[in-house]
Amino acid sequence: MAETDQLQRIKYKATIQYLGTSYHGWQKQEHDLTVQEVMESSLSRLAGESVKIIGASRTDAGVHAKGQVAHFFFSAKDSVPNLKKAANAILPKDVRIQALAKVSPDFHAQRHARRKRYEYHIYSGEVFPPFLCNRAIHVGHSLDLSLLNRAASLFLGTHNFNGFAASSTTVRNRVRSLFVSNFKKNGAHFVYRIEADGFLHHMIRNIVGTLLEISKGKLNVESVTEILHCRDRSMAGPTAPAEGLYLVRIWY
Amino acid sequence: MAETDQLQRIKYKATIQYLGTSYHGWQKQEHDLTVQEVMESSLSRLAGESVKIIGASRTDAGVHAKGQVAHFFFSAKDSVPNLKKAANAILPKDVRIQALAKVSPDFHAQRHARRKRYEYHIYSGEVFPPFLCNRAIHVGHSLDLSLLNRAASLFLGTHNFNGFAASSTTVRNRVRSLFVSNFKKNGAHFVYRIEADGFLHHMIRNIVGTLLEISKGKLNVESVTEILHCRDRSMAGPTAPAEGLYLVRIWY
Repeated sequence: MAETDQLQRIKYKATIQYLGTSYHGWQKQEHDLTVQEVMESSLSRLAGESVKIIGASRTDAGVHAKGQVAHFFFSAKDSVPNLKKAANAILPKDVRIQALAKVSPDFHAQRHARRKRYEYHIYSGEVFPPFLCNRAIHVGHSLDLSLLNRAASLFLGTHNFNGFAASSTTVRNRVRSLFVSNFKKNGAHFVYRIEADGFLHHMIRNIVGTLLEISKGKLNVESVTEILHCRDRSMAGPTAPAEGLYLVRIWY
Repeated sequence: MAETDQLQRIKYKATIQYLGTSYHGWQKQEHDLTVQEVMESSLSRLAGESVKIIGASRTDAGVHAKGQVAHFFFSAKDSVPNLKKAANAILPKDVRIQALAKVSPDFHAQRHARRKRYEYHIYSGEVFPPFLCNRAIHVGHSLDLSLLNRAASLFLGTHNFNGFAASSTTVRNRVRSLFVSNFKKNGAHFVYRIEADGFLHHMIRNIVGTLLEISKGKLNVESVTEILHCRDRSMAGPTAPAEGLYLVRIWY
């Protein structure tokens, strides 16, 4: 009996952080480097066999993660701390397994996610600090925190978010429930926090794009309610850039 | 009379931020890209003539600045805000003129600096967050804040810092006065703040290297006083890496 046959295939849940700047998002692609690909190639190298990993969220190119979650099977001789350490030792430095745990074979990182938190970072000062390059967006106009929060609060609750979904969205059910939608600021650095039971493709970036149009006076606060009601993408603001967006936390 | 002859040569004080990762420090070098060089080439392009810029501190390769100060002469048609905007438009994104002001022709960014503040960022958690890559150092052991602060406080006051100067240091007077020397922490992220009337080459990185040896128990707290007394570089810790260091503020 070969040694590998004696090893138990164990399902792991990994909490992963990455700086998305160098990656074409999470999801594996034929030509471009993705986080899923570097995760799979690192784990496969450790396993000595092909390892597939399923992520909770398909983050777009340039989007960052402070708490992406993914699951994979691994025929482990090693303890959890050893496997985490070994994987982090060969992963690129802009991708880290922050936490690793054994889970039930039933666990599914994507299907069992109950709630997700994202953040969107915006800098509204005159000169964009070099430290925020690719990690926040720079807006040239000043932002009114209370106006932004009035508009942001209108997204709370259960709505059909078709007006904020990418036109390429194929998923049929466009109804999502938002639990958190608010801005906090630290000087000229604004952070939008949004939590929901799920998000449609580009939904957060379209919401942020719309809130920025409101902050410029190009749309009024009430237009949020109208777009939610009319479900018309063409009424909403443009898709905000990817680099301000962070997947922060996923609840199961 | 040519148009440039009618322009007044005005002295400017620029406060500059940069991410030092891509640069071989501030000071111009023959073969490697430096911040001084990109500043001079951008300003020269705007001026249509060679512009020389003098920085307050020669930060090492990989060291960052939140508030480097430099002076230069510029034959300006433009207002201060326009010149700042024009320079930032052609500078690389990792170098920004954060503030610009006209100053007296006597002003000297380096010679007139009265006090400088630096920060050194250290992450002591198990997994180094990708967002801190090249912006902090990672230490594998846990750090004791009160032990670090006890040792850090021994540097306060006026001492001969020869024991903490690079062996290549040529400046004769090695006496400096430290006004601030302490650690603050936010979770596993430790920030050492140090303020003095001036610093010798590698002085802060050697102080940090020594404090880290103390945190590991390889040196004891009292060794700070001994090294200051003996002025012996070989007794101190190794030079801490450049990427944790930030030039934060300069007073005139």
